[in-house]
Formats: sequence, structure tokens, C-alpha cells
Amino acid sequence: MKRKLEPEPKTIGVVGGGQLCRMFCEAVSPLGIEVVFVDPTPDAPACHVARDQIVGGFDDPDAVAELAERTDVLTYDIELADPDVVENAAEDAGVSVHPNPDTLRTIQDKYVQKNALVEEGVPVPAYRAVETVEDLRAAADELGLPLMLKAREGGYDGRGNYPVKTEDDFEDALDAVEGKVMVEEFVDYDRELAVMAAQGDGETELFPVTETVHEEEILRRTVTPARTDKKTREKAREVARDVLEVMGGRGVYGIEMFEENGEILVNEIAPRPHNSGHWTIEGTHTSQFEQHGRGVAGLPLGSTEIRAPTVSVNILGEEGPRDVSLAGADDLLTSRAHLHWYGKKEERPLRKMGHFTLTDNVEEATVTDELLGEADEIQNELRFEE
Amino acid sequence: MKRKLEPEPKTIGVVGGGQLCRMFCEAVSPLGIEVVFVDPTPDAPACHVARDQIVGGFDDPDAVAELAERTDVLTYDIELADPDVVENAAEDAGVSVHPNPDTLRTIQDKYVQKNALVEEGVPVPAYRAVETVEDLRAAADELGLPLMLKAREGGYDGRGNYPVKTEDDFEDALDAVEGKVMVEEFVDYDRELAVMAAQGDGETELFPVTETVHEEEILRRTVTPARTDKKTREKAREVARDVLEVMGGRGVYGIEMFEENGEILVNEIAPRPHNSGHWTIEGTHTSQFEQHGRGVAGLPLGSTEIRAPTVSVNILGEEGPRDVSLAGADDLLTSRAHLHWYGKKEERPLRKMGHFTLTDNVEEATVTDELLGEADEIQNELRFEE
Repeated sequence: MKRKLEPEPKTIGVVGGGQLCRMFCEAVSPLGIEVVFVDPTPDAPACHVARDQIVGGFDDPDAVAELAERTDVLTYDIELADPDVVENAAEDAGVSVHPNPDTLRTIQDKYVQKNALVEEGVPVPAYRAVETVEDLRAAADELGLPLMLKAREGGYDGRGNYPVKTEDDFEDALDAVEGKVMVEEFVDYDRELAVMAAQGDGETELFPVTETVHEEEILRRTVTPARTDKKTREKAREVARDVLEVMGGRGVYGIEMFEENGEILVNEIAPRPHNSGHWTIEGTHTSQFEQHGRGVAGLPLGSTEIRAPTVSVNILGEEGPRDVSLAGADDLLTSRAHLHWYGKKEERPLRKMGHFTLTDNVEEATVTDELLGEADEIQNELRFEE
Repeated sequence: MKRKLEPEPKTIGVVGGGQLCRMFCEAVSPLGIEVVFVDPTPDAPACHVARDQIVGGFDDPDAVAELAERTDVLTYDIELADPDVVENAAEDAGVSVHPNPDTLRTIQDKYVQKNALVEEGVPVPAYRAVETVEDLRAAADELGLPLMLKAREGGYDGRGNYPVKTEDDFEDALDAVEGKVMVEEFVDYDRELAVMAAQGDGETELFPVTETVHEEEILRRTVTPARTDKKTREKAREVARDVLEVMGGRGVYGIEMFEENGEILVNEIAPRPHNSGHWTIEGTHTSQFEQHGRGVAGLPLGSTEIRAPTVSVNILGEEGPRDVSLAGADDLLTSRAHLHWYGKKEERPLRKMGHFTLTDNVEEATVTDELLGEADEIQNELRFEE
């Protein structure tokens, strides 16, 4: 394996130009890689750090075809990318897509995703595809109540989920969630974990296991290393390695898990950098974004060794929609915190507007209460103002 | 002091779009800051991570005027910026320039720079302005031989320097160097040091003292913390603090120094991020580039605390001019090294094509021999190929 760094930059085409693409651009530029992306919103968050934005829908064949023509390899920062559109555009332009469109198809339908994982022996919560009240009743008989009804496609950040607590909820749940649905057993987890896993050209690298803290199904913060025992962390990494067996194509995968009585259950997989891996920008030698770029571009994967225990905190919108600025950022800007502001013009409730990361003293086994307290203090000062 | 993060990005205008501007763009994007720059070379190294490039000379009044009109504040990544042009453009557009044009004027003429430093009590090597062979003879009588004859303006990376060893060199030296010149005593230094110093809005921050290793007057690598005693490091920081007294305007200054028998002499100052501070990208919580952006934008300065002992190694061109790729990069890409590739299309002897950084175990006082050995091994594999 003898690779060269070309003076002519390799250009990666990305479907989607949100904060993931923005941080991707920041991370791959030092490798000599540049980015062109497709996004329907003019002046999307990645715009100013990319070579160019093509304004167009994620599933717009013309926009994606132009993207493929102008770049050396395609990827996406959003699962809403249309696998057929991307595949056709890539074939016509003679470039490849990573992760590959079949993986995207598998992941996009949560039921198909779960089936593929089960086939590989990956532990997942019990689940059933359902269409009717009768199906729901049968699932409830088998799996017990409560259940979580989920849209099989298109849901994220808790959207498309509906809790089914009693039989009375069956009809409301089916009415509330559009499209094909499934139910899953309610996991009474002790902890939520995530592993970012990278697939390169004949090699894999796992990032350290992170603990993800959700409220209202939105990620609030990550704590790394996860505050669980070493054996469970090792189990999580083993499961992540098995998950990669199901995933075709190079790049980074975000694997969300439940920890329940020392057992690991895979919740969901994202075929791209993921919010639960933002901490790697400061926390590991190679960030998830650089790693994704290396994978997609066919470069060797980098070191995922942890640099320090790390906490990352999401800055979420509270009200709106309204145009805002972020006030109370003095503690944030004068501490050792690393700010990542996504440049979104409009606040909306629970919208991800940015995040910050704090790294701890390296000799600690995981983040200290002091650091968590500092994160709280910084966060509590932040507020949006019109 | 209550500052807000605006959803509308602050735009910084930069005169110069080389690797310094490129790394500046990468570093300030997470703060919600974007960049437009002026550079005469189309598709300059910063192009793909900036909002826009205005193609024009560093001293082109129209290009710089357009830059000022399109941005909120001006700075430069190169001393060749014309202070009058920048000042006029900024005044017309009603924006400020940091560091300020007077500082640029002072620094651009090394003789004026030295006078200003001496006035503040900053120790510098003995120096004289010279015009004629007689001046040179008088300087040699006073300061002894050898002397270094230097162009007062425009020289960098050793260009514009001519060593004067004996009286026979007087005429050749004056012929060899164009424009106004000066001579300096030859400092038989034990070590070269550098301190990146940041000036904010009523605050200053100094980065840890780094050791700079030059060959043929080109920086080859930096080792941080500098491998000298603590007292000398503290002295270097004191001197850096005094230097800031001479510097007007916010931003980061690169202060190059000689260490001679435990004493510090200031060699040269750059009113911008500097090669001797590249290690801060991985080595400190806030990099010199982010710090420069914070200063120029009027945000609070960030923490300059060291994260780990760090070595940075320049990747220099060997031959050319010719179009090349970098081969033998496998060790570089698979180790814990952080690559920064500048995307220059043409190799030239000693041209700065990129750099890489290695961080050490945090408990070490400075970088270990093992890490230096690893840096050597990585560097020795690298070669340019047509």
C-alpha cells in the first residue's frame, strides 16, 4: 500500500450541507481534500468552507448528477439522500459512493436495518413490523406493553416515534405516524452508549465508547469514556465490529446502543459522522470527520486513540422560529471549551444550533464531576436573544 | 463584557491567501466566522475553505477596497500587505484593521522595528543601518565581524540576508542585497525560541515557549515546550510581553528569539500567525489561528494552555519548479501524526508544502527522544515524485 498525496486536491461530493458537512469540510482540508455539496437551502451551514454549493434537493437527479460530475467520490451527511439517485449519478459519472447505496437502503428502513443486524447476530431490542391495530395487538401480546411505535423511514431525533402505553393508544399511534411503521420493545436501559466505527480500504478502526445522554429523544451531551465498566465497553466495541460486517462501503458509522444489565442492544445506525462523535474533534487524534474523509477518499484510517476524557454539550434552540443571536457566551469563550457554532440563521425549539466540548485532565479515567460542573455552568449562561 | 454570537457570520477580510490563510479559515469557521481574501494567484491555497477569493495583488487598491467593502474587519497573512492601501480601503469602508497599519509599517522595516523594540527596552542583537562600504567598515569596527547584512524590507525565510565574514565581503554584500539594508551582529546562539503572543480587547495571552530548529535559515521543526530551563522560558515570555507593548492592534504576533547564555534577544516579529506556532493546532486548547480570529473579530481570547508536548515538522520542497505529488506518506497517515497539506501545485526547493505534528504523552516535561525519532522516521519516508 503506497499512497500519494496529490497536489491537485481530491474533491469529495456530499449530499447535504448542514453542520455535519461543515465540520467535515473543516476536517478534511488539512488532508488536501475539498468538498462540493448539494443542499436545498441556499447558503447552507457548510457553504463558506466548501469549494461550492449546488443548490438542489437531496433527491434532485440533476443536482446530484452535477455533483458526481464535479467530484471524485460521493458521500452524504444525511440519510435522506436518495440511494437510487446517488447510485445512478455515480454510475453515469464513473465515480464511487461511500458508504454504498445498498447500505443506505438498508439503513433507511429501520425494519430492514434491524433484520440485517439480526442476521449477523447483532443484538437488538425485540421488534415487529406492523400495519394494523390487529398487528399492534399481536405485537403487544408477544412483546408486552409499553411499546415504541416508529416510522420505518425518515424519522430522526425522536421525530416519527410514538409511545404505545396501553391498548387505547393503538389507533392514535397508527394515525400519528405516517408511512410504514414498526414497533419495538421499550428498553429500560441503564445507559445509552455509542461507538463511531470506521471502515477503510480493508481495515477498520473503532473510536472509544461514548456515553450519550438524551432528553426528549434529543442528544444533550456525550461523556467519554462512557461511565460504565470496562467489560461492557469492550462488549460495545465487539458489537460495533459485528455491525460493520453488515455495512458495505468505506466511511464512518454512528452506532447507537442501549446498555441494559450489562448487555448491549443496538438501537440505530447512521451511515455517516454522528452527533455522538462530535467529541472526537478534540478528544481523539483523528476526528470522526477526518476519519470519514480518509475512508471515503481511500486514504489509510487514522489513529482513534483518545487524547483526554471529554464531554460535549449540544446547544439547542429553545423557541422560534425566530432570528436570534446567542448571548451569555462569555464563560464559553473564556474557558477551555471548544466552540462549534453551526451558523444557522433561525432558532427553532430543540434545533441543533451548535455544540461545545471540554477536555479533562488526561490522567482521569473518565470525565470528573468538576468538568461536568463546568459544562453545566457554561451551558446555563447561554441564552438566545432576538 | 457581554458578547453575543450572531447567527449572521462575522466576515474577516484577509490580504493574502496562502497556507496561513488556509489554516485560519479552518480554525475560525467553528466560531461562526468566515473569510474572504485577496491573493494574486487564482485558486490560492485558502480558496476552497474561504467564502470567496478576490484575485488581485496584495497592494492592489481596487481589490483591497472590494475586500473592505465585503467584510467586517481586515487583517493580513503576509507582511507584504501595503499598509497605506489597507488603511485607505478600511477607512473608506468604515471597518478597522488588526494589527493596525502603523504596526505593519514598523514591522516591515526591520531597522525601524528594531528601533521601536529598543525604545521599549526589548533586548535585540546589536544592529546598524548601513548604506556604503564606509558605513559597513564603521559597523564592523564597532560590532566586530562576522556580521549579517539584511534587507530592511521584504526579506523572509532567509531571503535578503547576506553573511559578511571579512572586509572583502563588504562590496559583494552591498551589491547582493537590494534596497535599504542594515547589519546585525552574528549571534552565537545556544537555541532559537519563539513565542506566539496574542493581543485581544484589553487582554493578552502568551502561548508556551517553543523551540525552533532552522537549517539554511528555513524553519525545519518546532519542539514544545522548548528544551531549555524554566527560568529562560519565563524570561522569553517576559520579553514577549514587552514586545506586545510595541504592537498596536489585536491579533497574534510571532516573536522569534535567540537564546544566548541564558539571555534572550529578539530576532524578528511577524504581525500574524507564524510557522513557529503551527504546533498549537494540536498542542494547545486554542490554536494560534483561532486566537488570531478571536483577536481580530473582537471576541475574548481563548485558553493557550498546552495539551501535550508537541513536535511539528515542515514538509519542504526539494527540487523544481515542477508539479509533484508527495509519496511515502504511509507512515505519516497511519501514525498519530496530524497532517496539514497546503495544496500547492508546484514544488520548489525549500518551499513550504505542508507540515505534520506529533503530540507526546502528556506526563512528559517536553517531547521524548522516541517522539523525535518517530518524526524522523516519518519525514525520511516522504519524497516528492513527478
